[in-house]
Formats: sequence, C-alpha cells, structure tokens
Amino acid sequence: MDIGVLGTGTVGRALAGKLAATGAQVVIGTRDPAVLPGREDFADWRATSPAVEVGTFAEAAAAAEIAFNATPGHVSLEVLRMAGADNLEGKILVDVSNPLDFSTGMPPSLFVSNTDSLGERIQAQLPGTRVVKSLNTVNASVMVDPRQLADGDHHVFVSGNDQEAKQVVSDLLRDRFGWRNVIDLGDISTARGAEMLMPMWLRLMGSLGTAMFSWRIVT
Amino acid sequence: MDIGVLGTGTVGRALAGKLAATGAQVVIGTRDPAVLPGREDFADWRATSPAVEVGTFAEAAAAAEIAFNATPGHVSLEVLRMAGADNLEGKILVDVSNPLDFSTGMPPSLFVSNTDSLGERIQAQLPGTRVVKSLNTVNASVMVDPRQLADGDHHVFVSGNDQEAKQVVSDLLRDRFGWRNVIDLGDISTARGAEMLMPMWLRLMGSLGTAMFSWRIVT
Repeated sequence: MDIGVLGTGTVGRALAGKLAATGAQVVIGTRDPAVLPGREDFADWRATSPAVEVGTFAEAAAAAEIAFNATPGHVSLEVLRMAGADNLEGKILVDVSNPLDFSTGMPPSLFVSNTDSLGERIQAQLPGTRVVKSLNTVNASVMVDPRQLADGDHHVFVSGNDQEAKQVVSDLLRDRFGWRNVIDLGDISTARGAEMLMPMWLRLMGSLGTAMFSWRIVT
Repeated sequence: MDIGVLGTGTVGRALAGKLAATGAQVVIGTRDPAVLPGREDFADWRATSPAVEVGTFAEAAAAAEIAFNATPGHVSLEVLRMAGADNLEGKILVDVSNPLDFSTGMPPSLFVSNTDSLGERIQAQLPGTRVVKSLNTVNASVMVDPRQLADGDHHVFVSGNDQEAKQVVSDLLRDRFGWRNVIDLGDISTARGAEMLMPMWLRLMGSLGTAMFSWRIVT
C-alpha cells in the first residue's frame, strides 16, 4: 500500500513511522525537503524510520493511494493546494487535523466549528477526493497504538461521504494501528462533532495532567 | 436537603423525581403553576412523584438550598431572571442546560460555543450564585441512573469557580444518582468543553440509534 503523509510534525511522523513499520510504502511530504531533513530532531526521527521517503507535498500526494493530512489545521487548506487537487483526485484523504486557533490564548479555540468544520472545508476544496475525517480525537501516540490504553477498549470515529472510503480507512485503522472499535458517524458534516471534541480534550488534558487518554462510548 | 428544580420537561421531571425519591424536599418550578399541572402528561408524572411540590420559578428558587437549571438553553437566562437573583444569592445552581439552536435545522447547532458558553453567561448574570455546570453530557435517564450503563463505569463532569460547590454537587451526584466517576474540569469557562460535546452526542445518537449512552474517558 502506497501512503502519502502530509506534514512532518509529531502527528505526521507517528503516522508515517507506524505505516512504514507495518509494510506500507510511505512518502512524507513537506514544504521544502531540501531544508527540513537538516533539522536535528527530524534527522533523529528519520534514523528510526529509514524506509520513509521524504518529498514535497505534491510528491507525497502523487505517490499515494491513500493520503493523510497531518498538518496543523490553520495551514491545511494551503498545504492541500500545494499538494495539488490533481494528485489527490479519486483518492482517499484521511483528515487528521484540528482547526485550532491559538490567537485567542490558551487553551486554543477553534477557527471553524458548530455550523461548519475543517473536514467539510477540505472536502469542498477537493470535490474529487474522498475525504474521511478520523483520528483527530486523540494524540499522536494513541492514534497509532491505541492498545496502550485499556487494551484498545475505546473508540475512534470516521466521517465522510464515501462509504467504501470509510471502510478502507476503518480496515487500515484496525489492521495497521490496532483500533478495535470504529464508529461511523455519517457524512462529512459529522466532522463538526468530532472536531468539537477538541475543546473538551484540551480541558481533560488540563484536568487529568496527561494527553494519554481516549474516548469510550458506553452503551 | 431542599432542592429547587427549574423546568418541568423531561430533564426537570427526572431530576425532581429522583431527588424526591432519595429523600430531598423538592419544589419544581414552572412559569405558571396554575396552568401547567393541568397538562395530562404532567399530571401523570405527578402521580409518580406526589411528594414534589409545584411552584413558580421564584418559589422553587426561594425554597432551595441547591437549585437545578433544567430549562431549554434558549430560555435559561430568561427563566433565571424570573427565578430572581435574590432567591439564588449564595446558593449552588447546577446548570444542566445545553445551548441548542434549532433554527438552523437538524441536528441543532449551538447558539453559544467555542469562545463562550451558556454556563459562563449564567454565572455572569448571577455573580452571587455558585454555578456548577454538570450532567448536560447525557440524557435525562442516564443523569439520574448512571448505573444502568456498564454499571456506572463512565464519567460525568463538573465545571465551576467555587471548589466547595463542586464538591457538594459531586457528592450529590454520587450519593443520590449513583455516579461513580466525576471529573472536575476546572473553572466555569471549562463548560465550553462540556457543552461542545453536544454536537458529537447528537451525531452519536444518530449513528448508534439510541440516546442511552455516556462517555468514558479511558486512560
């Protein structure tokens, strides 16, 4: 499976590393590959995941069967323009971003919420791409290794307009990351619900004193 | 313990009934007591909880040591004006409301969120009252009988500026309703997080096909 990961921060590295470790061919995309690999912390990470190739956003998107948007929410639409709608046409894009707005102080608010979502904005910008919102409800470590919490007895969510795409992503989450429970929330507008967990996630992190937690829906 | 419950809908009835059943003296407040008890469904409910007295919002607030705001979010500020700031001065007000806006279609959006919350607006309107946001993250049945789901192995949250008030409310939630796990999110501004669960709750209800669920924070 060919994967393109857009974004080289904590989330992008976690996704790219785990996907490569499970046998995927991964290109991690960045604004300027000539500059970024020189950063010491990125070089350290590369040493742990030598199979991951580094390219531009466009190269990562072009190489992918499935792409991941792992960029900060406030630059996601710009990054996806750089990646190129043509390079993502017909493909699945897993949108992991959160629309965090740090301009109003800490904890951050959301720059889009309630009557719209970043997932919907991305889908609107890329009408030929099958956008699936997922994984944005937990931190990077939990995303790719959910079994470290309660042996995986908690939930991740998928939102998207394409049923087959959500099934492919759900299978990937299970087979490569170890998620036991995936809830299909509905079409991409349900990303509003998933993204609006973030303000609660931030308060819970403050109260619990850790970012290592997840959501279990108890019925 | 003297309790005033503002609101005679599903939530108000559930709270008043359970509190009376656990030995509290309860006055349930409504706009016009002379009109409401004539409604057939309210009369049916009264028959199951005959110890609950019916009064105006002001009478319910005046009689209370602890008051509950169980009114729809869009009328909560008006109802609390009718209840009277003097009648709530120095008291604990448990705010159970959600700021649901049905004007934009279904599922509803929120009329305040992200950079403010209804809990904060209520606290601002009643500076002498100790507002504790809680219980708004589950339906009425789960609020007062959490053990019916997974033997109570899930979470409820409290937000408020007064630490003692949050402790009193947490004790009440445990002793009278059966909540096993209460998370203190912080000051009243953390009500933003708790209220912003509602859009996700609505999508989960749609996806799961039931309103009988709750949140467990898995660490």
